[in-house]
Formats: sequence, structure tokens, C-alpha cells
Amino acid sequence: MPVLVMKFGGTSVADLGRIRNAAEKVKREVERGHDVIVIVSAMSGKTNELVGWVEETSPLFDAREYDAVVSSGENVTAGLMALTLQEMDVPARSWQGWQVPLKTSSAHSAARIEEIPRDNIDQKFAEGMRVAVVAGFQGISPEGRITTLGRGGSDTTAVAFAAAFDAVRCDIYTDVDGVYTTDPRIEDKARKLDRIAFEEMLELASLGAKVLQTRSVELAMRFKVKLRVLSSFEDTDDNSGTLVCAEEEIMEQNVVSGIAYQRDEAKMTLISVADRPGIAAAIFGPLARAGVNVDMIVQNISEEGRTDMTFSCPVNQVARARDAMEKAKKEDEIDFHDLVADTDVAKVSVVGIGMRSHAGVASKMFEVLAAEGINIKVITTSEIKISVLIERKYMELAVQALHDAFGLDKAA
Amino acid sequence: MPVLVMKFGGTSVADLGRIRNAAEKVKREVERGHDVIVIVSAMSGKTNELVGWVEETSPLFDAREYDAVVSSGENVTAGLMALTLQEMDVPARSWQGWQVPLKTSSAHSAARIEEIPRDNIDQKFAEGMRVAVVAGFQGISPEGRITTLGRGGSDTTAVAFAAAFDAVRCDIYTDVDGVYTTDPRIEDKARKLDRIAFEEMLELASLGAKVLQTRSVELAMRFKVKLRVLSSFEDTDDNSGTLVCAEEEIMEQNVVSGIAYQRDEAKMTLISVADRPGIAAAIFGPLARAGVNVDMIVQNISEEGRTDMTFSCPVNQVARARDAMEKAKKEDEIDFHDLVADTDVAKVSVVGIGMRSHAGVASKMFEVLAAEGINIKVITTSEIKISVLIERKYMELAVQALHDAFGLDKAA
Repeated sequence: MPVLVMKFGGTSVADLGRIRNAAEKVKREVERGHDVIVIVSAMSGKTNELVGWVEETSPLFDAREYDAVVSSGENVTAGLMALTLQEMDVPARSWQGWQVPLKTSSAHSAARIEEIPRDNIDQKFAEGMRVAVVAGFQGISPEGRITTLGRGGSDTTAVAFAAAFDAVRCDIYTDVDGVYTTDPRIEDKARKLDRIAFEEMLELASLGAKVLQTRSVELAMRFKVKLRVLSSFEDTDDNSGTLVCAEEEIMEQNVVSGIAYQRDEAKMTLISVADRPGIAAAIFGPLARAGVNVDMIVQNISEEGRTDMTFSCPVNQVARARDAMEKAKKEDEIDFHDLVADTDVAKVSVVGIGMRSHAGVASKMFEVLAAEGINIKVITTSEIKISVLIERKYMELAVQALHDAFGLDKAA
Repeated sequence: MPVLVMKFGGTSVADLGRIRNAAEKVKREVERGHDVIVIVSAMSGKTNELVGWVEETSPLFDAREYDAVVSSGENVTAGLMALTLQEMDVPARSWQGWQVPLKTSSAHSAARIEEIPRDNIDQKFAEGMRVAVVAGFQGISPEGRITTLGRGGSDTTAVAFAAAFDAVRCDIYTDVDGVYTTDPRIEDKARKLDRIAFEEMLELASLGAKVLQTRSVELAMRFKVKLRVLSSFEDTDDNSGTLVCAEEEIMEQNVVSGIAYQRDEAKMTLISVADRPGIAAAIFGPLARAGVNVDMIVQNISEEGRTDMTFSCPVNQVARARDAMEKAKKEDEIDFHDLVADTDVAKVSVVGIGMRSHAGVASKMFEVLAAEGINIKVITTSEIKISVLIERKYMELAVQALHDAFGLDKAA
């Protein structure tokens, strides 16, 4: 029978009633002829509680013990989901990561999936079991210890199972009903997308549309797993939600698919840096080691051996970034005249796979912003994305104007 | 290094503060030169919460899923205990049942321990680990699924580890400071015993002195594991608590060690049962199948082919017992004239290994009760115990009078 993977996040299994609701969706797919692999998260709040206990017990915790503790929430949900399905006369059983076994690296609390042997679960399917409920987010290391995949790891678990079992699709049930052209709280004409390309989803996810863990989208792209995001709180059918898929599966496509934003950004400029080979490494090495998430980087034209280097980072990392730079200067690793921080900026991005074949997206974006009187502070571009930093107070206006100008309220 | 097993129950690890307190006791034993195996229960209340969820989800639950769910509480405590010890610079790691592996039968939710291979933990001890923290109450079946040992199974886990690792002792930390001659709430002269024989502990435990799970005492007796009960909430040393041990390790011994009681008993009498071979089986088979916990059984002298059969059971099982008997009569399995229930009785028992070699304990007991004007309704005896059913309102008086008469307020 064709295998379908269904993943339910923490809010979708937050209590016994919601687990029952999720189980009904599973049962419907079984009745439609699928063997189903269900991946479950912990009940919402449980993992945070466990993480809190670990951190209070041991601030610099042994990650192996962290994993042993925090993985327990998923085990509870997996067992309860299997029991709920059995009550509905659906043959089901639960699997913990080590039972599958979902084999991972030894990088505790951020382990990478290495192999998912199919034998055990396939055998049960052959014996008439219709649903394998698997505890998400966890696996087993070569040393036989429990590992976790990092936050959001249940999405990655789901995609990995879909790849291993050649699933027809991987459905990610969550508390939103799909991926939107932009945030509906900012633009009420925001429209749910029926389909979106993997590459676009990656740009949107990393830009703040936090529907799917980035890693799971990368994995789906690599193994060509059809990934669908849909709501566990609505009646759903084959046309629900948003399908994340390969570009060639999207027939009609707007040039631009979505407008993303990030509100709390800061722009930092190192004035008059001594320009020499390796200077970028000398700057961004210390920043990375200090845990600063540098996003955009712009280097101005070099004049007389000195240049200005601008980068953006989350506004709450400005102090850390400044410390790292002052320290590097003191230790003669870099030389600059001044460090200027502008903590009052936001990032707005236009994303669309169509812009690879359509010129003029950038100039249209700049014209729209100019018409609204919005000054652009930094620009970066990639093949399918153009991002700008602007003054924070104009962020909503920019999103709305761009959404309108690129016709995102209307389907292609 | 000599191995010591230390077990901490749910109230002893109820929160992070108490886990720290328990860890300090473990550290002290490490500093005194022991390699320690710590067995932990779930934080108090957690297992009940999980059991509640399972029962609400599926009243006739699949015991394999029940075990997968309810075992998770111990995993949390084991990890947190290992982290706490590491914070105190004690080399420690946690082990879940399947990691040891603690091999059990497939009787889910009431599994029996079959084997505890020492290799994994011994190797870590050899490498310098000083404490193995093991999640109690759980194991792994031959099919590779998680099993639990039934309620109180963590005591049994602790004794089994002590037997497997030839431990010098198995210390059970709980919320009482030892085993008493009787319940201090009834007799304020009740005295904590320094030592008690396994056989006596078994009689006291099954009679209601619920300090140790009966099964764990049986196991300790079989494998000659020195078992100690002591408080996790007091400063403790080598002389704390009560040592449960073989008879020959107790030098001075009172004839009677303790007075036990059971308040809510009922006495049921089948009047004029047709007496024939197999009649006892015909009566007590149906009662067992109906889940009635029959305790005392007395058969009167048979006259003209008919006899009276009396038994006791918990008062809240009287209706169930009556149903089972009426049904058996209807189906012609047994024949009796009447069934009389006396729901107003309590059981008082005198327990002591010394009575094997001292005559006159029974007659002294009957004299003491007679002197207080207490009528005896049923008597049963074993080698080391004499039990009587009396009217419930005299129970406290009987316990006090017997405690005094046998000199239990004074050490031997």
C-alpha cells in the first residue's frame, strides 16, 4: 500500500482531545488506502518544561543527558496516539527512535540523521499494522545513547521517514493553514499559496515565515519529498494547505511568490577598515565565535587601502557584536576607525523563483519603495530574493505596497 | 570498588531541590569509596498523570503502549539525577531500562525481571564512572518493547541490581525513617526497629505496613540482599533506618517484632456448604476470577456432609464476592444455604520470627484481648504470625494492648 507520512506538532497534540482529532485525520487516510507513518511532537509546553529543568540543574549540561531527558515528551504522545488509533479500530503501534532504529550522528542535541532502516516497520505493515506512530525529534547514536535533532527536529524526522519509505507525500499538520504571500497580520489581502517551490520556501522560512524548519525543507528538496503544510484545526482534504514541491511541479507561477520581513534588525558599519586579503575572515570569524547571527554583508568600494564594511544582525546581538569587534581591534586582528550601529531598521524581502527568468523585479521594487518615500539603507540580492534594510517605521507600509505592486493578492 | 545500590522513591525526587538532596547522599557514598548504582522513580505525581491519560484514552488499553507511556517519568528523573551529580563533580551517567539492558518477560505492565547483564555498567565503572543512574520500574521484552514491572517496581529494580552486582547493600530511601513495631499513629510508644528478618518484613508488608513492595523483599530474601529502609529527608549514616536481613544476622531479637493491622476487612461466611472433595476450589476459584482478594480462610468441622466456610476480604469487595457466590450457586457449581457478611471487622496480627522457638505467644495474645473484653471472631496462624479478626471499634485498643504486653516499646 502507498505510504503517507503525517506529522503533528505540539499544538496539534496538546491534549487528549486534540490527539483524538489528529487520530481522526489519520484514520481517514488509512480508510483511503494508505499505510501511514505518524510523527508526533511532545504536547505543547512539555519540551520547554523539560529543557527548563535541565538548564536549572546544570547550566553547562552534558548534552547526552539533556537528550535523554527532553526526548521523553515525544514518547508519551506516541504511545497515547497509538492507543487512540487502536480505540478507533485502526491497527497501530508506537515506536521510539531507538526502536526503529533512527540512526543518527553522535552530535547530541543537534544530531544528524544517518539512516532509517525500513525492516522493522515494513514487517509490521506486512503483518497488517496500518499506522506506525513514531516519536519525533529523537534517534540513537552509534554508542547506543539517545540523541535529539534540535528544535523543530520533528519536521526533519517526518521528511526523513518520507524519504526512507518512498512516501507519496509528507503532510505537516500545524496551527496555520498554509504558507501565505506575506503575513496576514500586516497585509489583509495576503493570500494562501497552493504551491511553493522548495527554494522559495527556504528563503521565506529563513526570513521569518516560521512554518517549517529550514532543515526539513532542505532534506525534502534533496530527496524530492512532496511536503505539505496544513492545519490540524480545520477539515482538510487533498487540496488543503500549501504544497512545497519542486519548481517543475508548479505550472502557473507569479514572478514573485511572497514578501518576507524581519522586524528587529540592526545595521552595523565598521568605518574605514584597513583593507587587505583576509579582512572579511578577520571580522566575521570573531563575530561567529561570539554567537552573532550575521545576515546581510555589504562591502563598499575600497579607497586608498581602506573600506567600510556593513553587516546586519538581530538588534539584541548588537552589544555582543560590538564587544567582539572592540576585542579584535585591541588584539590587533582588525583595524577600524569607528563602529556605527543603526538599531532602528527592518528587513523586507521579495522572494520568487520566477525572477530568475524575469528581469526588472529589483528595479520595480526600488520604484515602489521610492514612490512611498522609503529610503533604502542596504541592498542584497540572490538569484530568487532581493532584500533591503529600511527604517523600521516604514516596514508595514513597504510590505503592503510591494504585495500590491507585485499582484500577490491574485493567483497567477 | 564495592558497589552500593541506592533507590530514591517519587517523593524523594519530587522536584529539583529534592533531587539535589538525594544526589548529596549519593556523593557521600562515592566519597566513602563505593561505586554506586542509583535507581530512581518518577517525580511524585508524574506516573499517576500518565496512567490517567492512558486510561482516559483507552479504558481497555494495549499494555505495550501503556508501558511505553508510563515509563517516561523515570527517564526524566534519571537524566536529571545524572546531571545533578555531574554538577557536583561526580562522574555519572543515566541508563534507561533498555540500555542496560534490564531484560524482562513479555508480561507488559507486570513484567518479571529475567536478567541484568553487568557488562555495560561494569565497563563504565572500570573507565572511572562512579555512579550509574538507572530509571527504575522498566525493562525491555524479548520483542524489544518497553516493559514495566508494575506499581512499586522500582524497589524490585533496586534489589535486582543489588543481586546482579553483588552489592554490599541496597538502601531504599523513602519518606519514612524505617520499619516500626506498629503504626505510630495508633501507638505512640511504637519503636523503630534496627533490624528485621525478611520473613517478618514480608508478613508486615502484606499486612499493611506499606514501606517496601512485597516482591522486592521476596527477591532480597532469595538472593540474600541486605535491604535497608531509611529516610531521604533526614541526615543519615550507617546506623540509620531499618535493615531487612537474614534471621541469623539479628543477634538479639524480641519474640514478637511487630503488631500489624488492617482496618477495612469483612468476614463472609457461607452457611451449610455441601462438603465434598474440591469444594474449596469451587468456592475460591470464582472469587479469584472476580478479583476478590481473599485473605483468611477458615473451614469449620464438617457435620453430616455439610460445613460452614468463612473467609475475609477487603470490605469494598463484599458486593463482588457476593455476586460471584450467587452466580456459582445458580450454575450449580456450589450449594449453600446462606451467605452472611460481617462488614464491621478489622484484622490484628502479631508477627515475630522468635515465636517459632517460643511457645505461648498465641495464648498470651488471646489472654491480652480477653482482658480487654475483645471478642475474637476468626483466628489464623502461620509459623511466624497470628492473626485475629475482631470488631473494628476495638482495633486501636487491641494494637496498643498487644504492643504493651509483648514489650515492644523496649529493645531486646
